Amino acid sequence: MIRTLFAATLLATAAALPAQFSPQQVASLRDAALNDTYAFDITEGLTTEVGQRMAGTEAEARARAWSVAKLKAMGFANVRVDPFTMPVWVRGAESASILSPFPQKLAIAALGNSASTPPGGLEGELVGFDSLAALEAAPDSAVRGKIVFVSHAMPRTEDGSGYGIFGGPRRQGPGIASRKGAIAIIIRSIGTDYHRNPHTGVMNFPDGVKPIPAGALPLPDSEQVQRILKRATGPVRLRLQLESTKLTNQQSGNVIAEVPGRDPGLPPILVGGHLDSWDLGTGAIDDASGVAIAAAAAKRIMDAGRPLRTIRIVWFGAEEVGLFGGLDYRAKYGKQPHYALIESDFGADRIWKVDSRLGEARKAEAIAIQQALQPLGIVPGALDETEGSDIGPMVADGQPGVALKQDGTRYFDYHHTPDDTLDKIDPVQLRQNVAAWTAVLAILSGGIDPPAELNRRKKR
Amino acid sequence: MIRTLFAATLLATAAALPAQFSPQQVASLRDAALNDTYAFDITEGLTTEVGQRMAGTEAEARARAWSVAKLKAMGFANVRVDPFTMPVWVRGAESASILSPFPQKLAIAALGNSASTPPGGLEGELVGFDSLAALEAAPDSAVRGKIVFVSHAMPRTEDGSGYGIFGGPRRQGPGIASRKGAIAIIIRSIGTDYHRNPHTGVMNFPDGVKPIPAGALPLPDSEQVQRILKRATGPVRLRLQLESTKLTNQQSGNVIAEVPGRDPGLPPILVGGHLDSWDLGTGAIDDASGVAIAAAAAKRIMDAGRPLRTIRIVWFGAEEVGLFGGLDYRAKYGKQPHYALIESDFGADRIWKVDSRLGEARKAEAIAIQQALQPLGIVPGALDETEGSDIGPMVADGQPGVALKQDGTRYFDYHHTPDDTLDKIDPVQLRQNVAAWTAVLAILSGGIDPPAELNRRKKR
Repeated sequence: MIRTLFAATLLATAAALPAQFSPQQVASLRDAALNDTYAFDITEGLTTEVGQRMAGTEAEARARAWSVAKLKAMGFANVRVDPFTMPVWVRGAESASILSPFPQKLAIAALGNSASTPPGGLEGELVGFDSLAALEAAPDSAVRGKIVFVSHAMPRTEDGSGYGIFGGPRRQGPGIASRKGAIAIIIRSIGTDYHRNPHTGVMNFPDGVKPIPAGALPLPDSEQVQRILKRATGPVRLRLQLESTKLTNQQSGNVIAEVPGRDPGLPPILVGGHLDSWDLGTGAIDDASGVAIAAAAAKRIMDAGRPLRTIRIVWFGAEEVGLFGGLDYRAKYGKQPHYALIESDFGADRIWKVDSRLGEARKAEAIAIQQALQPLGIVPGALDETEGSDIGPMVADGQPGVALKQDGTRYFDYHHTPDDTLDKIDPVQLRQNVAAWTAVLAILSGGIDPPAELNRRKKR
Repeated sequence: MIRTLFAATLLATAAALPAQFSPQQVASLRDAALNDTYAFDITEGLTTEVGQRMAGTEAEARARAWSVAKLKAMGFANVRVDPFTMPVWVRGAESASILSPFPQKLAIAALGNSASTPPGGLEGELVGFDSLAALEAAPDSAVRGKIVFVSHAMPRTEDGSGYGIFGGPRRQGPGIASRKGAIAIIIRSIGTDYHRNPHTGVMNFPDGVKPIPAGALPLPDSEQVQRILKRATGPVRLRLQLESTKLTNQQSGNVIAEVPGRDPGLPPILVGGHLDSWDLGTGAIDDASGVAIAAAAAKRIMDAGRPLRTIRIVWFGAEEVGLFGGLDYRAKYGKQPHYALIESDFGADRIWKVDSRLGEARKAEAIAIQQALQPLGIVPGALDETEGSDIGPMVADGQPGVALKQDGTRYFDYHHTPDDTLDKIDPVQLRQNVAAWTAVLAILSGGIDPPAELNRRKKR
């Protein structure tokens, strides 16, 4: 029903086309954005002055306060926090050691929503599987009472497509291991780097399945465990400490700001990313750079003049642990039509492809976007596909959107690890992102007025 | 006096030249070694079955037991442990947090011989310096009662030459900071990578200087601290926990094995590396690969036949924490002439240059070595220079030697970090090392006899 509503809306707004923007203005704004400093400034400020900002914690609250001050200082209108509450999983003491036959410590991090081990940890025999399929195929008797280890073969890809299928050990592994009677599970990190930094990430036990402790080993430790299992002539025993606590009804929220359009009655353009991060790094690529790119592009439009349509910046809370912010926004505003949804949540390396789904009636607009991005080395992609993390549920509802797809080749080297820090942001590639976003917003905004110079004096 | 003795010895042995090896045999042994499996087998076994093996600990004792068994199984003669005792510094609980104005955790590791903080740590105001020179130039009043942070600008180099001068903050920094009244010091890791893995390493407080807690931050954390110091409008406060303990008279030892020469009266060729590692990684590049390269080359000579001169393999104990093994060997055998000293202690990336110091009378032998290595892409270097870590004191005494210099471009990405693990060993480059060492040993060994085939049947 909702999908039908949005389809009708798209047809209704189609009358506003052909495009009301000037291609020269778009190109000029795009190329000027290759010198952008707003995005790096936001990324550096948020990761330095707040650092990690795990959803629902006091750190995320500090991030919201920082964001409200920053967005106000940048001159955006209607800056506010939309609060919501959520359960919070809190990491405690963590360690893992092979006890026999080759005693040694391993690096480890618990997965989000892992059950806690008893204080000090637990001990058990380790049983290894090279894939999730191998674990699934194993008889319960091979697993019962043991600690399960699961590997996988995630490759490095430009489009990040390995994360879906090879993320199985993290997403489904703990539930499968628990069902078979395992006392805990450790997995090869869902990542592509060989550093001793584990990749955490969220997982959920299916209803009725007993939560067990679940952790991720870095790739060097994971392959070490495989070698140890292969060389051991008897049982391999592991000591595993993954302590954690769970809190209910903690505070989170979405930070919202706007560039008011000349016609407030038109559906807004939503641009965003997520403000929360995992707790191990400072969340530079995931997703300080995302909120920064969205806000920088909006700011550049605002600096140029007043757009016809309102641009609404949403820095979603609590994405990592279950899309709480995206679902809260959808509950509050998701039935209203949006002119487009656009989210940046895949780092800050160069955008290499643009997909969109604006509807058949807005095909000219979609083609104009493709053409405006080609000088940035961006391949025209699908016209009937779009995506996003926090905006995902609204995309599924049928809302229109644009997907500016970043190069993910090195994204899973850092994703959800302590290594997600500012130094992983390449300023040149970050600026290419801002340029692409600025061009897209210039087109979607329906024309900017009054002229830039006049407006610049007024706003500053 | 000792130098004069060795100079005289070199002249005395000069009569044994011209070279007694066959260039064809050298080339054949060298090229066959490009398919070597011994070195990787040792590196993998030691790092997997023992892992970290901090000097003077039970882990290093397990490494000695593993080594004796391995060297015996490989067929070497006179396999034994030369024991010695030493003081041991043991890492305890470690953490660091910025308390204000931007609360967040930092990654940290204590430097070897750091003083221990009180249990739970200490708190203090942080004062930053961009170089050791800036710390030295600061008035005591700027440092007294504070926690000092020191950065530096170590570059990535092929020959590793940045490690000397830019290692100052680690080697001299703690002493200078303590003299000026600092309560603790944290430094930018002496390394070149941007991962959240600190580089530890040894340092010593000068006599009469009070030991203070001393730790290293990974580069991302170090630059974060610099940004925080720059952005803070008031004092930056740090909580620092670097607990450790010191033990006296702990057991270490050198593991020694030999390929007996046909003439036991001739000075032996010493080939080696060090068995101990730092406690954070599994010591693959530092220095499992080094002991492996030395033993693999000796094994390949032994497989080929019986050398004229004895090849003595020494896997030194306790290098990292003060060359205890090298000094023990020197005390016991250093007055005896050696035909050459050769050590591998700079990872396992390709050898790019060969230096030697065999003496004027053995120039033809040195040139033969250069020529035999050129097909491996190895640049002829100095004829009057050699070096090594454990062998360093004996090199300083004037003993002759060969230095097969490895490419250090990525060495300081992993050196003394948790990231020093097996996956950092490139098997192709490791085999190039073994090939170069085998060629050098074939030349120095003074001719191999009886023919390879006969010998192979006898040994196996």
